Amino acid sequence: MKRSAFFISDSTGITAEVLGNSLLAQFEGIAFEVHTVPYIDTIPRAEATVERINRAAADDGMPPIIFDTIVNKDIRAVISRSEGFTIDVFGAFLDPLEEALHLRSSLNVGRSHRLTTNSAYQQRIDAIHYALDSDDGGIRSQYEKADVILIGVSRSGKTPTCLYLALQYGIYAANYPLTDDDLDSNQLPRPLRPYRKQLFGLTIDPERLAAIREERKANSRYASIGRCEDEVRLSQSLFTRYKVPTLNTTRYSIEEISTKIMAEMGITRRVSGVY
Amino acid sequence: MKRSAFFISDSTGITAEVLGNSLLAQFEGIAFEVHTVPYIDTIPRAEATVERINRAAADDGMPPIIFDTIVNKDIRAVISRSEGFTIDVFGAFLDPLEEALHLRSSLNVGRSHRLTTNSAYQQRIDAIHYALDSDDGGIRSQYEKADVILIGVSRSGKTPTCLYLALQYGIYAANYPLTDDDLDSNQLPRPLRPYRKQLFGLTIDPERLAAIREERKANSRYASIGRCEDEVRLSQSLFTRYKVPTLNTTRYSIEEISTKIMAEMGITRRVSGVY
Repeated sequence: MKRSAFFISDSTGITAEVLGNSLLAQFEGIAFEVHTVPYIDTIPRAEATVERINRAAADDGMPPIIFDTIVNKDIRAVISRSEGFTIDVFGAFLDPLEEALHLRSSLNVGRSHRLTTNSAYQQRIDAIHYALDSDDGGIRSQYEKADVILIGVSRSGKTPTCLYLALQYGIYAANYPLTDDDLDSNQLPRPLRPYRKQLFGLTIDPERLAAIREERKANSRYASIGRCEDEVRLSQSLFTRYKVPTLNTTRYSIEEISTKIMAEMGITRRVSGVY
Repeated sequence: MKRSAFFISDSTGITAEVLGNSLLAQFEGIAFEVHTVPYIDTIPRAEATVERINRAAADDGMPPIIFDTIVNKDIRAVISRSEGFTIDVFGAFLDPLEEALHLRSSLNVGRSHRLTTNSAYQQRIDAIHYALDSDDGGIRSQYEKADVILIGVSRSGKTPTCLYLALQYGIYAANYPLTDDDLDSNQLPRPLRPYRKQLFGLTIDPERLAAIREERKANSRYASIGRCEDEVRLSQSLFTRYKVPTLNTTRYSIEEISTKIMAEMGITRRVSGVY
């Protein structure tokens, strides 16, 4: 049974999408077909969207669920006349917020993006280049500047996590891959020793690691379950020996891994989320 | 005048943060001090958060604004007894959604992360490695696979945009920097010619470009306004000549640049947002 959901916005659609996905996730057993519809900032675009919603309603034989974060009331009114069931985010929350803040909202379309100050943009770019330069053990002279240095075996999730921390939060995240020599010696690699407080270890279930590596290099020793089991066991032993805080990434999204590291290490974001 | 706001969640806090930032952005003139408080999944953690809220209320002399996306009703009830003004996201929307869907919600803490299927994770990782491998004109044999190839002068925003598209949407985004030779000849670089339909041009105001380059290489010819003006003018002329769709990135966030490119090129996300 297909059921359509639409995330509709006058801007990127990220707010509608994030909120909508969170709420729909509470209804197990329904397979939603989701559509993000961004940049609906004119009446004609809203009318075209209503036609799309109504077609989905006819196809599904049921009203689609609409998450609407359009700021302009006239454009929002067009969407509200569709055959969908609408969750009107600004409609629901702006009135109570106005009362609590004793202030009228400014209701500017795409207002949130004006919060993108040059310095926040600059910080994110700087953090991204930091992550790229110091990825995979590169440019170690920069470790001094690191908010966190992720360590773990190849494909335990270090690179995507560093990039996410940089992009979303402007955090300086380096990473260092543990080599066979590091693992066999059970010694913290020399370049990392001055930075023990910044270290965070990523671990992963060997089965999952083998599956990820198999995608990269099929039928290799690198992807074999035996090799993966050995590497994971040795890396965990190293983390324990040096009391490095760790996270098993197996069942988590990149967002969860990143926010859990920040929470555990007490890292404050350098920019707040801009969407 | 400081006013505190808290984004409180039993999971990453991203939903509360994205929704809260969007709503608060509608109130210009108030400088909010925002705090994301993730992983509040026990009564004692909720009680500690209430103490934090109440201290902020005392400091500010006004009730903080609370955006609460905790799923568990008992934990949420603790937060609701704080001195803050609470926007209860699940409280507001779950009942009407249950009615519309004729289904009780499953109310599982952190439920959204179970949507992180292995294949979605794999797709994001694959797209990130694609972006890294084909960054800055690298590994051109992969252009066949590109959903989009961004072109533009150095520091016009290509790399962060490619990484964002990969991380958030699993999209294969390559980028190619226009060299002096490319710009002077007003010819599309040879490696790009078979892929004209995938090309998207980024442009930027010369003043902004000079400021960004100045951060990277202070007092260089590379960062001089004259050089930036020339490069931007020549790149725009190339885009016009070859009818490459373009976006001026100057006043946009990475999120906006990415979603605008997807909308303009008709690129469908390969994974939907998982938070």
